[in-house]
Amino acid sequence: MTRERLYLFDTTLRDGQQTQGVQFSTAEKRQIATALDALGVDYIEGGWPGANPTDSEFFAHAPRTRATMTAFGMTKRVGRSAENDDVLAAVLDAGTPAVCLVGKTHEFHVATALGVSLEENWEAIAASFTHVIAKGREALFDAEHFFDGYRVNPEYALSCLRAAFDAGARWIVLCDTNGGTLPSEVGRVVAEVIAAGIPGDRLGIHCHDDTGNAVANSLAAVEAGARQIQGTLNGLGERCGNANLVTLIPTLLLKEPFASQLQIGVTTEALSGLVRLSRSLDDILNRVPNRAAPYVGASAFAHKAGLHASAILKNPSTYEHIAPELIGNERIIPMSNQAGQSNLRARLVSAGIEVAAGDPRLGRILEIIKEREDQGYAYDSAQASFELVARKELGLLPAFFEVKRYRVTVERRKNKYDRMVSLSEAVVVVKIGDQKMLSVSESMDETGTDRGPVNALSKALAKDLGPYQGMIDDLRLVDFKVRITQGGTEAVTRVIIDSEDAQGRRWSTVGVSANIVDASFEALLDAINWKLIRDIGVPV
Amino acid sequence: MTRERLYLFDTTLRDGQQTQGVQFSTAEKRQIATALDALGVDYIEGGWPGANPTDSEFFAHAPRTRATMTAFGMTKRVGRSAENDDVLAAVLDAGTPAVCLVGKTHEFHVATALGVSLEENWEAIAASFTHVIAKGREALFDAEHFFDGYRVNPEYALSCLRAAFDAGARWIVLCDTNGGTLPSEVGRVVAEVIAAGIPGDRLGIHCHDDTGNAVANSLAAVEAGARQIQGTLNGLGERCGNANLVTLIPTLLLKEPFASQLQIGVTTEALSGLVRLSRSLDDILNRVPNRAAPYVGASAFAHKAGLHASAILKNPSTYEHIAPELIGNERIIPMSNQAGQSNLRARLVSAGIEVAAGDPRLGRILEIIKEREDQGYAYDSAQASFELVARKELGLLPAFFEVKRYRVTVERRKNKYDRMVSLSEAVVVVKIGDQKMLSVSESMDETGTDRGPVNALSKALAKDLGPYQGMIDDLRLVDFKVRITQGGTEAVTRVIIDSEDAQGRRWSTVGVSANIVDASFEALLDAINWKLIRDIGVPV
Repeated sequence: MTRERLYLFDTTLRDGQQTQGVQFSTAEKRQIATALDALGVDYIEGGWPGANPTDSEFFAHAPRTRATMTAFGMTKRVGRSAENDDVLAAVLDAGTPAVCLVGKTHEFHVATALGVSLEENWEAIAASFTHVIAKGREALFDAEHFFDGYRVNPEYALSCLRAAFDAGARWIVLCDTNGGTLPSEVGRVVAEVIAAGIPGDRLGIHCHDDTGNAVANSLAAVEAGARQIQGTLNGLGERCGNANLVTLIPTLLLKEPFASQLQIGVTTEALSGLVRLSRSLDDILNRVPNRAAPYVGASAFAHKAGLHASAILKNPSTYEHIAPELIGNERIIPMSNQAGQSNLRARLVSAGIEVAAGDPRLGRILEIIKEREDQGYAYDSAQASFELVARKELGLLPAFFEVKRYRVTVERRKNKYDRMVSLSEAVVVVKIGDQKMLSVSESMDETGTDRGPVNALSKALAKDLGPYQGMIDDLRLVDFKVRITQGGTEAVTRVIIDSEDAQGRRWSTVGVSANIVDASFEALLDAINWKLIRDIGVPV
Repeated sequence: MTRERLYLFDTTLRDGQQTQGVQFSTAEKRQIATALDALGVDYIEGGWPGANPTDSEFFAHAPRTRATMTAFGMTKRVGRSAENDDVLAAVLDAGTPAVCLVGKTHEFHVATALGVSLEENWEAIAASFTHVIAKGREALFDAEHFFDGYRVNPEYALSCLRAAFDAGARWIVLCDTNGGTLPSEVGRVVAEVIAAGIPGDRLGIHCHDDTGNAVANSLAAVEAGARQIQGTLNGLGERCGNANLVTLIPTLLLKEPFASQLQIGVTTEALSGLVRLSRSLDDILNRVPNRAAPYVGASAFAHKAGLHASAILKNPSTYEHIAPELIGNERIIPMSNQAGQSNLRARLVSAGIEVAAGDPRLGRILEIIKEREDQGYAYDSAQASFELVARKELGLLPAFFEVKRYRVTVERRKNKYDRMVSLSEAVVVVKIGDQKMLSVSESMDETGTDRGPVNALSKALAKDLGPYQGMIDDLRLVDFKVRITQGGTEAVTRVIIDSEDAQGRRWSTVGVSANIVDASFEALLDAINWKLIRDIGVPV
């Protein structure tokens, strides 16, 4: 059976840039475009040339891609010809093979936002696409507010689609601009549009997540016959975001009826890099990755319930809808006081440690974990620290170095310009083999800002680690969470540190103490030890 | 037209607790149950009595609710009678009006996870529900892996539903346990189950978000006739989470065809508290609220695109699918603060400060708040600090004392018994009127434990405040939350401190700095100043 082709149109660089707090640089746009091309999307919408300097610069220096580079703009304004509209000219001047123009299809918006007649708007669409096609470009029509417009005046909304279609637009993209339409209505309307004469292989879908249905709406449109999906990486986008391509791609490749009926440009090999791609975008944006993200989240294959974990050991498909390796993710059996020995063994296996069922050390490790969780530790959120506890009990924890003592001082006072400033300083004394080393660091960064006592401590520690320093140079603290919690009868502080390295590893460690600096130091030491084990290995 | 009743079953306290990193205390469970009851859900699943001490303790001290309190468990084990199954007995012993038992309906799981015959499993379901009904309880059957099982062996899966139904279970809940089923299949299967003889008003749906479709799957089931939805607040739950009730509730109340055909127990007044409810759960869990969350996210009504913002000013419905006020959210238009003034006045009134509408200082306060929130402050979670910012601008903030400088030292070393111990010491210099006072404190408590630098600082500060000391003697730090967040272009630390006094007041303050001790100190100062204003008043 020949599978029909389904096209993926990525708008991370255009609609994705409308995310609150997101502002890509030109270099970042180039980096993301290259990653999108490697993923295998069919179109990359790079921005709106002329609307801002970054977008114009990106198109001037866009990377060469197999995917069709697309410039975004809007249909010509009423009152001037397509040839004389400078906004449209700037879009065409970007020289991209494809051009996507947004235009109105909802009578309310024609009147309220544009203030022109329905006929004038219709003519603007027809003239704009005639012009773009005459310039030899592939043309796409983003039919703004189509579902809302169709609800109110289906004849007019459809006539706007036909204006672009008859002028030669390759794709008519039905946009749920405000994100309020639900899946069953999307499916019904797409079927009606096809029945009204626009073939499904010329129809695209553009959804927003305002009701949490952007993914489902896109799938409903495809099931009804649409053959292009517009979306973004990690669901970036205006308000609640656009349809998340990182979620849609595995569904389209792995799930029925899509897998056997449709074909997309993403290979299974590219699919296996999806977790890395998703995390790298978070990295560019300095965002904490969503642990619960479908397919790619760190928790997406974490089995906390005791019943689930024991079944997973017998057969992973008991509680996994797909194998995590397919998208480059991994199974996690979190340790928590709800779980038993089977969780423990599975978790050890995923850390590369084999222990036979019934080994008495398993029971001892569980006891230690339970005791420490009673003190306030949370190994559920700190897999790396859990691994170190188990290694210690199993005799698989090398003593790379020993911290003899440390001292941190935080001072706040007026400087010579009569401004309040603070400064932190740390002294750490470490023993490596026979060598004792004293190091001191302060917490000032290159801008003169005091980054605090934990920063000063970690810098002093890194200075001290002589032979290991090369291995921890790329260690980066990416998140730091602190809770006052109950340790026995006393309130204590729990610090969880998320770390990252240049190889894309990400791991979490925990420290507990009544003293926040001490708790941080403990989590920091665990983070370093875990990385040294990964980089050096464990001498047998 | 009479609207059919649709029931909401919340499992935040049971399946929600399977979220990686989530471990509710009994007090938190009580707090969440009370909030769920105020929201208007029909069932609250409190946990699995007997499975862990927290759940057992919760049921022993559960708050009185209008919602039906429900205990979770599993069907009796094969090889013993329902009467003699101690696990089932522990569930019944919790004494809840309703009991929800999970059981197998998928032949693969019966063989692989249970290792019993299909008939034995069927009989276990029938016997378990006969037993629960005989005990006079309302019974719910969580039909685990139903969609996967139905795909492989529909006859057997249906026969398991009938075993519970015929025994008298009030609800048969179809569970997509692994989260891999897509909306169109969910809709089709629910319709087939109804056609096979289980009426829709006895059917529930339980979805997970592994393909990003938990909300859409729940809606598809309801459109096909199911009349109970199981879900959690903020979509907590195993792996990628459960169906998010915070997303579903506004859709059910505000969107067609649901709004005019169905009725749920949530009033429009409760709906208007939804943002607050969602944030309060994040607060309990020390999670950063998801800005892009449908309906309740801080960005859900943020209009960044220039074209959108200008149309919004003409008519908000141009780019909003619903009015943000309906769910207690607010519109954000970058560079425009006209939306916020009435909000601001309301917040000031609740702090006992009356400012006339149109007072130009309102605009200035909004600007300061916005600027400081850009730096990383979070006034939503720190009403007391917000009040102090407003008081300063309004000239209503007395200068009780001035901190000239401080220094804190944290030291960790071996003591004379060769044990590692830590000690913190703080020196604070404060000016009250003309008097300058130096104080020093260390962080050792009566048990000899080092309580850390913030403790040392707060003790030194309390020592220094001579005339005010009586008023802050009963001040107690009850929670302390720390996040790495974005302040401008740099990562900074945000500390939120919850304080309490002997009069039962509880208030929250915020501090932001790259230095965690400094941020804590700022929040601590705000906490003290807020209390002094309450105890002394503001001299006019």
